[in-house]
Amino acid sequence: MLGIDGGGSGLRAAVAAAAGGPVLATASAGAANVRSVPEPKLTERLTRVVGRVLPPGGAADLVSVVAGFAGAGIPGRAGDRGQHVALRALRTALGRHGCAPPHLRVAADSEIAFAAAPGCPPDGLAVIAGTGAAATRMSGHRLAATADGCGWLTGDDGSGFWIAREGVRRALRAVDGRGPATLLVARLAEAFGTPVPDPPSLRYALVDGALDPSAPVRLARHCPLVVRAAADGDAVAGAILDEAADLLAESTAALRPRPGEPLVTVGGLLGPRGPLLQRFTARVAGWGLVPYPVGDGLAGAVALARAACGPGAG
Amino acid sequence: MLGIDGGGSGLRAAVAAAAGGPVLATASAGAANVRSVPEPKLTERLTRVVGRVLPPGGAADLVSVVAGFAGAGIPGRAGDRGQHVALRALRTALGRHGCAPPHLRVAADSEIAFAAAPGCPPDGLAVIAGTGAAATRMSGHRLAATADGCGWLTGDDGSGFWIAREGVRRALRAVDGRGPATLLVARLAEAFGTPVPDPPSLRYALVDGALDPSAPVRLARHCPLVVRAAADGDAVAGAILDEAADLLAESTAALRPRPGEPLVTVGGLLGPRGPLLQRFTARVAGWGLVPYPVGDGLAGAVALARAACGPGAG
Repeated sequence: MLGIDGGGSGLRAAVAAAAGGPVLATASAGAANVRSVPEPKLTERLTRVVGRVLPPGGAADLVSVVAGFAGAGIPGRAGDRGQHVALRALRTALGRHGCAPPHLRVAADSEIAFAAAPGCPPDGLAVIAGTGAAATRMSGHRLAATADGCGWLTGDDGSGFWIAREGVRRALRAVDGRGPATLLVARLAEAFGTPVPDPPSLRYALVDGALDPSAPVRLARHCPLVVRAAADGDAVAGAILDEAADLLAESTAALRPRPGEPLVTVGGLLGPRGPLLQRFTARVAGWGLVPYPVGDGLAGAVALARAACGPGAG
Repeated sequence: MLGIDGGGSGLRAAVAAAAGGPVLATASAGAANVRSVPEPKLTERLTRVVGRVLPPGGAADLVSVVAGFAGAGIPGRAGDRGQHVALRALRTALGRHGCAPPHLRVAADSEIAFAAAPGCPPDGLAVIAGTGAAATRMSGHRLAATADGCGWLTGDDGSGFWIAREGVRRALRAVDGRGPATLLVARLAEAFGTPVPDPPSLRYALVDGALDPSAPVRLARHCPLVVRAAADGDAVAGAILDEAADLLAESTAALRPRPGEPLVTVGGLLGPRGPLLQRFTARVAGWGLVPYPVGDGLAGAVALARAACGPGAG
């Protein structure tokens, strides 16, 4: 069994025995988003990480590989190249180590995350909240429906990007009198390199500091600043986090949750110790849901590889 | 008297007699946003447009010139080059025609818009709502305070960009079950070149169609589609326009309006026959304000040029 978790900020692989024993080896390499990492680079990274985890002489015994990639395996995206690119890169990388497993699957990142739930259930919900945000429904271990996940410009409500943008918006509202005072003004000005701005230039320091014209989504890196301001008692920052949890719960509700069904949460905001986990848990409790937060999809990728070929295979 | 209105999509100039008679000549040239049009191009356009309106032999008699530019004359923007660039380009252009007027002022676009109010009052409010949106307070013919105008990423609430983005957001909410059905889904899909999308790819057609990575603000060009859907009775589109008017009124309120004071509105949404004018008028009526919508700032630029040197000058 070989499981691979290819995320936007890291690529990890793990091998394990089919019967369900412990993970035998893990290794990691660079980013692996199939929509942003060029195919030769992706192939090279996969080759490296697979080489690190394969036991000596064990290549021929590998019967099942499941790899989840950010940006891959999104059902319905017209003309999506991600899944094809990922599959080709993965086949090439495995071939270089003499592997041609009979079962090989490229999955969406939400699919492997969900599979980390206890018992690797086939059906349930997975909610991802990191830089972006989406709620997903799984059916038979496959992504069956998605709510939100619509990107930083027109969606990803409640995500890290959303929280950071709201932080700047509400700081600006405080500065020009549209909203209440908040710690966010001074902290964002400092983060943007304007530690003691004179009042008239403060507005423009915040507007200009928030916008990276070549990659507006980079604003998401200031999400932790809003989280800290909320922890320090700032009511405006706290309200942003409350609203983010409302929005994530709303996306979950759009998938018509069934009481007691499995719900996996993952990503910087909803993983273990994620700053929105407690708020989100409180909101979905009324629907009979209890989040199971996971740190990443690696264990789930291994579990899916196992599930694909039944017990006893190697 | 020479007035110039340099907007993001056009540059216009007008000459008039000092005593308050009719405008004698007007002419127009290309865009004139001092933050996006290079200085040599701006100088060339100003030279051309000034040459078209100056009466033969009248160059030496010109005593007052006021020019408003999008992107110029924003008090407090640290290190703002706009005003300096505009002033230098204007001096050069006038010099080429033998003009060196004793009074020469580069103004913000809101300043010249406000000056078009009847009687060219020194104090009051101007609200701009086009691609962007801002509420401004004038004191002594000068911009004294601004609410919002914080750009497409972190502000411009209620603007054309804001309306278009909300249109896409609510269409996506309808598609994935987070929100009610709306005409916007089919109309946006058609506008984005996906006239009869198969349902699973619709989400991604909308997300991808909305985002121009090199210029996200271009989404604003779809604002008229939301306005038309509202006119056709779509409740979701109507709610977007209602909320936009609420936000523009909120920005106005942040400037603490005084009952009866002048309020000029300008821009595609709040100019004469602007689609938000009626909604906005209803909202500010309670504060004793009656909007005076103007089509552009040209008449105001002429009025400011007159006001600067008093009656009798040429």
